[in-house]
Amino acid sequence: MTRILGIDPGSQRTGIGIIDVDDAGRLMHVHHVPLVLVGAADFPQRLRRVVEGLTEAIDTWRPQEVAVEKVFMARNADSALKLGQARGAALAAVVMQDLPVYEYAAKEIKLAVVGRGGAEKQQIQHMVGLLLNLKGRLQADAADALAVAITHAHVRATARKMGMDTRQAWSRK
Amino acid sequence: MTRILGIDPGSQRTGIGIIDVDDAGRLMHVHHVPLVLVGAADFPQRLRRVVEGLTEAIDTWRPQEVAVEKVFMARNADSALKLGQARGAALAAVVMQDLPVYEYAAKEIKLAVVGRGGAEKQQIQHMVGLLLNLKGRLQADAADALAVAITHAHVRATARKMGMDTRQAWSRK
Repeated sequence: MTRILGIDPGSQRTGIGIIDVDDAGRLMHVHHVPLVLVGAADFPQRLRRVVEGLTEAIDTWRPQEVAVEKVFMARNADSALKLGQARGAALAAVVMQDLPVYEYAAKEIKLAVVGRGGAEKQQIQHMVGLLLNLKGRLQADAADALAVAITHAHVRATARKMGMDTRQAWSRK
Repeated sequence: MTRILGIDPGSQRTGIGIIDVDDAGRLMHVHHVPLVLVGAADFPQRLRRVVEGLTEAIDTWRPQEVAVEKVFMARNADSALKLGQARGAALAAVVMQDLPVYEYAAKEIKLAVVGRGGAEKQQIQHMVGLLLNLKGRLQADAADALAVAITHAHVRATARKMGMDTRQAWSRK
């Protein structure tokens, strides 16, 4: 059994989702929550919410591996900067806890979760709920965080079946 | 006497500089070093170097306030993203130690250190060396980190003279 933490970094909300995957590749939902950054006193305090929220989740749920969405090309330099800072704070929180990080492109996530690289956001939300047996509509950022965790679970399961190291399978994908 | 940590975030090198400023506004150099991020195994490890380097510097030198350059508009979304991540990791390290952060625009730093908002990079390096009584040529990122610390020292000293709170003076500048 491996516990995976998925992170969907954003400057307004950073989604976190935690799942378990067993040796047969079966998925179990553990926890998900969007860290809400808007409303913090200033920008450094937003980043504090990212680090504190992630550190608390790691302390509570003890994930063994972390999956993060590779950043898509932001609309412009300003939004890239904001997104980058949130992502940098999230990755800082994770590497300081000595957890290995795996990055997945949006396309890979869509392919793993929906089966189509061009899937829509709602389809991802829907499929994440289905795959993890969740009732009700998932918050979008938390759904994306669970989606990247599921993607990593798939790569992990495939690696296992092929007798490969996870990192090796991941770098070859 | 107040100890100020200046940070110049960059995705290849993040400069850190520490100075003391006394009640009369006199400056004393304490420490400076560029954290070299290139050469790390992967991007998360780069961010680890930022957080570890800053945390170590904070533990060793115990600064009371932190000054960071406000980010200029990056050339493009890709470099903005990289810079943002380094900056996010640096700010994360700082806010997790409960240190207050003050941001200064490049123009304000040039004005404070050289006296001209349009000063060149070499002039800043030169003036920082002069103001802090340093011999030899300063590494550029470390010089920028010291420059933002000096800028904050000036705002602090001015606030003191006017019987104002530093944060208040800073927000009015």
